[in-house]
Amino acid sequence: MPRPKEFDRETALREAIQVFCDGGFEGTSTDDLLRGMGISRQSMYDTFGDKRALYLEALRHYITERVANQIRILSAAASALKGLEATLNAAAIAGTKEGTSGCMGLGAISEFGRSDHEIASLIDTAERTLQSALLHRIDEGKSRGEISADVDTRAATDFLSATFSAIKLAARGGASPQNLRNIARMAIRSLK
Amino acid sequence: MPRPKEFDRETALREAIQVFCDGGFEGTSTDDLLRGMGISRQSMYDTFGDKRALYLEALRHYITERVANQIRILSAAASALKGLEATLNAAAIAGTKEGTSGCMGLGAISEFGRSDHEIASLIDTAERTLQSALLHRIDEGKSRGEISADVDTRAATDFLSATFSAIKLAARGGASPQNLRNIARMAIRSLK
Repeated sequence: MPRPKEFDRETALREAIQVFCDGGFEGTSTDDLLRGMGISRQSMYDTFGDKRALYLEALRHYITERVANQIRILSAAASALKGLEATLNAAAIAGTKEGTSGCMGLGAISEFGRSDHEIASLIDTAERTLQSALLHRIDEGKSRGEISADVDTRAATDFLSATFSAIKLAARGGASPQNLRNIARMAIRSLK
Repeated sequence: MPRPKEFDRETALREAIQVFCDGGFEGTSTDDLLRGMGISRQSMYDTFGDKRALYLEALRHYITERVANQIRILSAAASALKGLEATLNAAAIAGTKEGTSGCMGLGAISEFGRSDHEIASLIDTAERTLQSALLHRIDEGKSRGEISADVDTRAATDFLSATFSAIKLAARGGASPQNLRNIARMAIRSLK
């Protein structure tokens, strides 16, 4: 008979994400992780490996879930412009909810830049997936006349993608919900 | 007779800023700082104090210089809109020049959020100074008809302030010069 599981893997991973959001990679000790996840050192090593392996798994989980959620919102709306608006507003709401606790993707870019190949590649893949979805929606909005024809699709994609980061960073810095909505609202203005 | 200075304080501080830009606070050891500044441990403690004191001085130096420079560019242009455009373009150029090496202000927000009172207060003061200058230029642009009258001044201020961070973060993540210019260009569109 297999030993009963002492903890839920998914729950422990979510706790680890929260700890890394707060402290980053360097600022988080293995003890911080064990406290946050409520598991023993041995369980952590057996289940996730060392701090770096856990960080990579947590980051992958965090950003793929984020991007999938963003693309879902972007695609669900009846029109392209409404989809873009809904995605930006959702980012403002998420920023409000998360408050100053930080975003793991943002933290990873800020902490590592391009210095860690594996982390950079993870983030690039997620970014490209989101940008591809944004680009299609922007093109669609232009062809339907919701988005101004003189908007450069590539430029708007770069810009909106950067705006998501700007919202997260503003939230981390203590911006008010109104402030975050303002960023989203002005970004949409640029498309009209 | 006083002992001759063995190093230039200002130069050493600039080197420390570069080290902190790359590694953040937690990711930088005192040894990294000594190597970067090319001074002895004793000189560092005598001149700057411990790692935290040096970080605070480096951060203050970095962000006050940044903001002063931004306000200079913002104010020098003949018109409000041209001033805003020049400041955004300068951010894109700075991002290109710094590349993935990171920005100390961005790193501090991302690493500490609101958890360190002294750091948060330093950043808030700089942010408020920049925002006050932006707000006046936006109001001026509206009253002269360069900026659309239906732009909310406060919203545009929040937005432009966030866009500067977005440009720095995109540069840190490896964005191309064209990508950074795109962000600046789209942000200006939102004001028209």
